[in-house]
Amino acid sequence: MAILTRTDHGAVAHLTMNAPERLNALSDAMLAALRDEFARLTEQKDTRAVVLSGAGKAFCAGHDLKEMTMGRQAEDGGRAYFKDLFDRCAAVMLAIRALPQPVIAAPHGIATAAGCQLVASCDLAIAATGTRFGVNGVNIGLFCSTPMVALSRNVPRKAAFEMLTTGAFIDTDRAVELGLINRAVPPERLEAEALALAETIAGKLGAAVRIGKEAFYAQLEMPLDAAYAHTGAVMVENMLWRDTAEGIDAFIQKRPPDWDQ
Amino acid sequence: MAILTRTDHGAVAHLTMNAPERLNALSDAMLAALRDEFARLTEQKDTRAVVLSGAGKAFCAGHDLKEMTMGRQAEDGGRAYFKDLFDRCAAVMLAIRALPQPVIAAPHGIATAAGCQLVASCDLAIAATGTRFGVNGVNIGLFCSTPMVALSRNVPRKAAFEMLTTGAFIDTDRAVELGLINRAVPPERLEAEALALAETIAGKLGAAVRIGKEAFYAQLEMPLDAAYAHTGAVMVENMLWRDTAEGIDAFIQKRPPDWDQ
Amino acid sequence: MAILTRTDHGAVAHLTMNAPERLNALSDAMLAALRDEFARLTEQKDTRAVVLSGAGKAFCAGHDLKEMTMGRQAEDGGRAYFKDLFDRCAAVMLAIRALPQPVIAAPHGIATAAGCQLVASCDLAIAATGTRFGVNGVNIGLFCSTPMVALSRNVPRKAAFEMLTTGAFIDTDRAVELGLINRAVPPERLEAEALALAETIAGKLGAAVRIGKEAFYAQLEMPLDAAYAHTGAVMVENMLWRDTAEGIDAFIQKRPPDWDQ
Repeated sequence: MAILTRTDHGAVAHLTMNAPERLNALSDAMLAALRDEFARLTEQKDTRAVVLSGAGKAFCAGHDLKEMTMGRQAEDGGRAYFKDLFDRCAAVMLAIRALPQPVIAAPHGIATAAGCQLVASCDLAIAATGTRFGVNGVNIGLFCSTPMVALSRNVPRKAAFEMLTTGAFIDTDRAVELGLINRAVPPERLEAEALALAETIAGKLGAAVRIGKEAFYAQLEMPLDAAYAHTGAVMVENMLWRDTAEGIDAFIQKRPPDWDQ
Repeated sequence: MAILTRTDHGAVAHLTMNAPERLNALSDAMLAALRDEFARLTEQKDTRAVVLSGAGKAFCAGHDLKEMTMGRQAEDGGRAYFKDLFDRCAAVMLAIRALPQPVIAAPHGIATAAGCQLVASCDLAIAATGTRFGVNGVNIGLFCSTPMVALSRNVPRKAAFEMLTTGAFIDTDRAVELGLINRAVPPERLEAEALALAETIAGKLGAAVRIGKEAFYAQLEMPLDAAYAHTGAVMVENMLWRDTAEGIDAFIQKRPPDWDQ
Repeated sequence: MAILTRTDHGAVAHLTMNAPERLNALSDAMLAALRDEFARLTEQKDTRAVVLSGAGKAFCAGHDLKEMTMGRQAEDGGRAYFKDLFDRCAAVMLAIRALPQPVIAAPHGIATAAGCQLVASCDLAIAATGTRFGVNGVNIGLFCSTPMVALSRNVPRKAAFEMLTTGAFIDTDRAVELGLINRAVPPERLEAEALALAETIAGKLGAAVRIGKEAFYAQLEMPLDAAYAHTGAVMVENMLWRDTAEGIDAFIQKRPPDWDQ
C-alpha cells in the first residue's frame, strides 16, 4: 500500500497519508510522496480542490524522530541531513500555498508539531471533534521553529506563543476560536464534510479560484497600496475572460452560467 | 435625489448611499460621489467623525454589473474601462483610510463583494443584526480579488479564504467573532448607535484623533522598531500642543478640559 | 522599598512594580528600574521565565502625568524630555521582546495606556478577572500612539481602533476574545497561576525556549519564504545540541530526559 493514497471524486482529489503505524510522520518517504503528488496536481487543471487526510488514529504526529536520530550518524553529526530535511519539509508546506487548487486539511486524532504545521499550511481546515493540536517539540528540547511560521500566520500571537513554549494541546473549540481551523464536525462526518466543501469550491469557475488563491497570498505580504495595485490588475484579467462575461450575463439574466471550462 | 446624501449632526457627517433600486451598487456615479464627498471631508476639520449607511433594503451589493457589462463594448473589450474602474474603486477605499475623520460603516441587509470591502475598509463598523456579509464574486466567475485586500486585513486568513472561495455568507455573530465588525445592534437602533459612537469620537480632541488615525495605519505596516520610532515622534508633537497640556492639567485637577478647538 | 521588587522562585523571577500610590505609573524611576532589571535578566541564563505584576490596586496606569507636566518647564517646552521619555519607554517594551526569557504579564485592577501597552508587549498574559484594559489617552487629548504599536499586534484592527478612539475599557472576557491576554483567573489565584505557567515554561530545555522566542518575533516580520529559511536554520542548530539528542532519545525510549542544563 502506498504511503500516500489518492482517490479522485470528480474534480476533487482526496489524498490520505498512509503510515498509520508511525502516526503518519513526515518521514523522508512521506515528504517525497507529498512533494511528488503536489507536483502532479500543479499540472492537473481538471482537479479543482484537494482534501488531505491521515489514515489510522492520527492525522500526523510531525517529523519522524527515529529517522532524524539515525541522521545523526553521519560524519557531520547530521547537519547536512537536517538542513536538507527542513528544506524539504518547508518546500512541501510552500507547495501547498503554491498549488493552483485550494487544499483542505481534514485532521482527526492528533496533529502535532509539523503535523499541526501541515494543518496551518493548508488553505482551509475541517477537523473531527476531539482532535488535539499542539506544537509540542519544546517538550523534547526541539522548539517547533518551522511549525510556528505557519501557526503564527493563523493564530493570534499570545496564543501561538503559549502553545509553543508550554507544549500544551488545544482542542477543536479553541482551534476554531483561534482561527487554526474553519470548523469541527463529528468524526463520522469528517470525510463527507471535507469533500462537500471541496466540491463546493470545485463547482466554481476553476480559473477564478486559481488566480484568486494566488493573489490571496501574494497581497497578504504587500503594503495596502501595492496590494490594491496587484489585485486590481488581477481583476482586470479576470473580467476579460469569456467565462466571466458569461457568468455575469447569466447572473443578470437569472439563469445558470454556461462555462467552457 | 442625490446618489449620496449627507446630513450633518454637529461634528458628525452622516453619508447615505442612495441608489436603493440598485442595492447601492458602486456604479461610476456612486464611486464619483463618494470620492467627491471624501475630498470635501478632508478639508472640513470641524467634522470629526463620519457614518456611512445605505438607503433601502441593502447596504451595498458591490460593483454595478450592468455598467461593467456595458464597458465590454469598447474596442479593447473593456480593458481600459475595467482598469480605470478598479483604480477608482481602490482610490475610494484608500480615501477612507486617508480621511482625517474616523469612518463608521453602518451596514444592514446585505454587504457583498465590494460592499463587504467597503465595510472592511472603514475604521469601525456597527451592523444591524440580520446583515449578511459575503465576497461572493466567485459564484459568477469573478473572484473578489480587490475586496479580499480589505477583508484579509480584518479577518483571520482561513475564514477569509473560505468566504472567498465558497461565496458563502456570514451573519453578524460570525462577523463580530472574526473582527469584520465591532458589534451588531437591532436594525431599529442601527442609526442611533452608529451616530452615538461617532459622537463619542467627535467629543475627543480632534487633532489627537486625526494624528492617531494616521499613525495607526502607518505603523501597522512597519517593523516593530520603526513603528516605535514613528509613533514616538507623533507622541512628542502631541505632547507639545496647548490643548493636550490643558487636557492633562484638567485630568490632574479633576475638572473638564477647556479646549480651544 | 524599591520601586521594582524581585523575588526568585527557582528559575522564575517574579518582578513587581511597586509604586502603588501612583498606580505603578511608568515614571522615570520605574522605567529605569525595569530597564536595569531586564538588562540583568539578559545575563542570567539560570532564570528561565519572568512574571510581571503590579503592587496595590492596579497593574499600571501608564505614564506619570505629573512628571510629564513638570517636563514642560524646560526651555524647549519639554520637547527633548518627551522625546527621551518615549524612547526610554519604547526601549523597555522592546527589551521584553529581546529578553531570552518569556515574560508573563499578570495584570489586575487596571492596565491603561502604557500600562495596557506593557501587557500587550509581554509574551504572555494572565489577568485577574475584573481587570479593565484601555488605551484611553484620547480622553485627555493625548492619543495612545506608542501603546497602539503593541496593542495592534495583539488585537484585530477594528477592535483596537475602537479602544483607541473612544477610550473605552474592555473587560477580561473581551480581552481573551481579542487575544490581548491568554486567560483570566480569579484575583486570589492570579499569582499562583502566573507562577505555574512560568514554572511550566521554566521546566523546558532553556536553550530551546531561548532560541524559539527569538525566532518567533524575527520570523513574524518576514515574508513566508524568508521565515522558513530563517527558522529552518534555527532548527538545524537546535537538532545538533547534545540535550536535544538526549530529549529525543528519552522520548523514543519513554523515559525522562537527562539534560545537562
